[in-house]
Amino acid sequence: MSARPFLAIDWGTTNRRVYRIEDGAVVATERDALGVTAVSDFAGELAAIRARFGDLPVLMAGMVGSTIGWREAAYIAAPAGIEDLGANLLRIDARTAIVPGVSFVDGKRGDVMRGEEVQLLGAVAGGLAPADAMLVQPGTHCKWVEMASGRIACFTTAMTGELFGLVRSHGILAAQLGAEVVLGDAFLEGARAGAKRDLTASLFGIRAAKLLGLRDDADAAPFASGLIIGADVAARVAEHSFDTAYIIADLMLGGLYAAAVKANGRAAMIVDSHAAFVAGITRLGAFLS
Amino acid sequence: MSARPFLAIDWGTTNRRVYRIEDGAVVATERDALGVTAVSDFAGELAAIRARFGDLPVLMAGMVGSTIGWREAAYIAAPAGIEDLGANLLRIDARTAIVPGVSFVDGKRGDVMRGEEVQLLGAVAGGLAPADAMLVQPGTHCKWVEMASGRIACFTTAMTGELFGLVRSHGILAAQLGAEVVLGDAFLEGARAGAKRDLTASLFGIRAAKLLGLRDDADAAPFASGLIIGADVAARVAEHSFDTAYIIADLMLGGLYAAAVKANGRAAMIVDSHAAFVAGITRLGAFLS
Repeated sequence: MSARPFLAIDWGTTNRRVYRIEDGAVVATERDALGVTAVSDFAGELAAIRARFGDLPVLMAGMVGSTIGWREAAYIAAPAGIEDLGANLLRIDARTAIVPGVSFVDGKRGDVMRGEEVQLLGAVAGGLAPADAMLVQPGTHCKWVEMASGRIACFTTAMTGELFGLVRSHGILAAQLGAEVVLGDAFLEGARAGAKRDLTASLFGIRAAKLLGLRDDADAAPFASGLIIGADVAARVAEHSFDTAYIIADLMLGGLYAAAVKANGRAAMIVDSHAAFVAGITRLGAFLS
Repeated sequence: MSARPFLAIDWGTTNRRVYRIEDGAVVATERDALGVTAVSDFAGELAAIRARFGDLPVLMAGMVGSTIGWREAAYIAAPAGIEDLGANLLRIDARTAIVPGVSFVDGKRGDVMRGEEVQLLGAVAGGLAPADAMLVQPGTHCKWVEMASGRIACFTTAMTGELFGLVRSHGILAAQLGAEVVLGDAFLEGARAGAKRDLTASLFGIRAAKLLGLRDDADAAPFASGLIIGADVAARVAEHSFDTAYIIADLMLGGLYAAAVKANGRAAMIVDSHAAFVAGITRLGAFLS
């Protein structure tokens, strides 16, 4: 644990959150839309953050360490734990660093993460999830991560949220998918249909159902979300043996995933993503000095 | 068979093809980009076609009979054969008609076609495919159709081509998928990976492979096409028992599907789509008068 105060920045593509952390606790925090795609002068931004939050050591994580960020940090090969990442911080200067990402390669299949590793390792280190468990981070690119002895052992990313965004914004289904996605019968019906893992046909069924009047079209959006999330969950359940999925998410998206996991016969628990990040970055902060 | 000359129009969303047919043979044909979305005065267009091709009875098929076309023709419930469609032509006037579509409903799952039915029934009636067979029409929305005794018995539409278009034009993979899709090792590798039916994860793997240098990025487009087509084929093979898929398509797209079908342990034959349409519309033309 880092007893000395420091600043943590969870710096993603479109958003940024700054924390001032003292003795493992957040004493100040602020979220804004200055993700890496909105920033060009990173050194200037960092000086402004220090001016507001204190002239302290800074540890950054997320896309700030990618090719579209400030400097490209390496991917550390899984299995990877806090010590592996802490020993490989990308140093910008003596008191400023970026957390590296994590990669997983199995033959020709590879996968990467950048930013998620802090929440994952923090969830276990902070006691929010067991040291050997399946952790899930839903979102645009959903991570399914097997943790072993508290380290990231192997993982799979599914572009679940991105696919939903694509069919919602473009193409033949767009006009039907404007409604809010809520957890209800239509989502669950979609999740069960999605478990067939026949996405291109199941998605066209949404169009046919409208033309044939088979479903209230107001249900099309939650049904489509259920289809895509359900297919993701079913593929992971078929591939991995786990009793409980620990879902690191807000309650809304976490609730959808939990329902889809339960529809596939496994238990689900929701882990607060903010608490997991703070637990992880605090432990990594000990490697700053 | 219609011995009397008539005009056939295959009038789709973005393209149109006109045929003058005499004694079952095409004596003149012309293709242009005046699909239904480019036309508002359908009666005027038809008069112009008759002025060019002859003042003859006209039978139209395709999206011209949809809500975005001239007049909405019904969907005839499967099983449906030539007589069922011929008896239910939508009459615009005494010598002008539109072929109806076909629907299939099984509980809450439904499916529709409009335009494809002419090729399907023609493929069998013209002796290009057996009367009991699995027929496939690849494209934006790929149809998989079980023919029984020469009639459309049941079918599934997969938005295979549309999904490839979405990931190619929008989203995180777009920059990687610009290359032409050719039949080769990368396509076949994708088709084998697609058979796992884990699309959202397999697609993200294309991004990870680039970041980790696991595959020549020039192969990303054919690999992605193989993934999506391979998942479609594997889902149909799991659902239907058939030895040979008869693929109604041009040689390029038909060749990709044939390779994916063979990778899933079934035989494939390619059926000329133009010949199938002419065989079908000629038989339906007998119902005009």
